[in-house]
Amino acid sequence: MKDLALTIRDGRSEDCAEVLRMIKDLAAFEKEPNAVIVTEDQLKRDGFSEHPRFHLKVAQVNEGVVGMALYYFAYSTWKGSYLYLEDFYVDPAYRGKGIGKALFESVIDVAKASKVKRMGWQVLDWNETAIAFYKRYDADLSDEWLNGRLYFE
Amino acid sequence: MKDLALTIRDGRSEDCAEVLRMIKDLAAFEKEPNAVIVTEDQLKRDGFSEHPRFHLKVAQVNEGVVGMALYYFAYSTWKGSYLYLEDFYVDPAYRGKGIGKALFESVIDVAKASKVKRMGWQVLDWNETAIAFYKRYDADLSDEWLNGRLYFE
Repeated sequence: MKDLALTIRDGRSEDCAEVLRMIKDLAAFEKEPNAVIVTEDQLKRDGFSEHPRFHLKVAQVNEGVVGMALYYFAYSTWKGSYLYLEDFYVDPAYRGKGIGKALFESVIDVAKASKVKRMGWQVLDWNETAIAFYKRYDADLSDEWLNGRLYFE
Repeated sequence: MKDLALTIRDGRSEDCAEVLRMIKDLAAFEKEPNAVIVTEDQLKRDGFSEHPRFHLKVAQVNEGVVGMALYYFAYSTWKGSYLYLEDFYVDPAYRGKGIGKALFESVIDVAKASKVKRMGWQVLDWNETAIAFYKRYDADLSDEWLNGRLYFE
C-alpha cells in the first residue's frame, strides 16, 4: 500500500455524507444520475438504528473515506440467508492500490463468518473493469436473468 | 374464478412443506433442480421466528395450497427499503385462472401499504410466459445487469 495508511473498518453514522456522495458518483457512472432519492438522514436512520436495514464497510485513507461496500442479508429460497453486496465503490483517484481488493475481501470475511452459503451482487454488463475484478475471485457471472421493477410514488 | 374457491392469505408455518415443494418445482423448471439446499425446518425457522427473514403469501384453492409468493424487504442505495419478490409460483394445473394475478397483486398491495418506492424481482430471459405476465403491469425489465455469485461451503 506504499505511502497509504489504509484502514478497512465498519461504517459509522457520521460516514453517511461521504457514503451518499459515493452512491451518487456510482449512479452517475452507471448512467442513472437522477435515480438516487435516498438522503443522508435516511441512510443514517436505515443503517444505524436498532434494526439496521444494511451494513457498511468503509476504506479510510489518512483522514478521508475513499471507498465503501454496503451490504445486507437477503434470502434465497435455494440457499437460505445470504449476503447481498448492494454497492461497492472506490474513488477513481484511489484505484489500482488494492483498496477495492481489501474492501471486497472484508465483505467475503463477513459472509464466511456469518456462515452463509452465498454472496451475491450485480454488475453492469459493460463494466469491464469490474467484471475483470470479480473474475479474479472465480465468481459466477450470469447474464440469464432480467431485473424486473415496478415503481410507486 | 369459476368453480374455484380461491383464497389469497398470509403463509403459515404449516405451509412450509408445500412451499418447499413449489420452490423445488420452480428450481427444476429453471434448470437448477439440485440448487435447493434449504429444508422445511429451515423455512419454518427463517420465516416464522421473531425476526422473519422472509414473508409469504399463498393461494389456497379448497383445501390445497397451489401457489405462493415469497418476498422480503431489501435495500437499495437509490430508493431505500424496497420489496423484493424472491419466488413466485403457481402449480401448472392451476394456471390460466387468475391465481398468479391475484397473488402478484396481493404483493403489490403489501409494497404500497409499506410505502416503499420499488418492488423488484428477477425472471429468466427465456421465460416468455412470465415476461408477458410482467409486461401487463408495465414493469421495467432490464437485461443490462449480470448476477455475480460466490459460494461458500
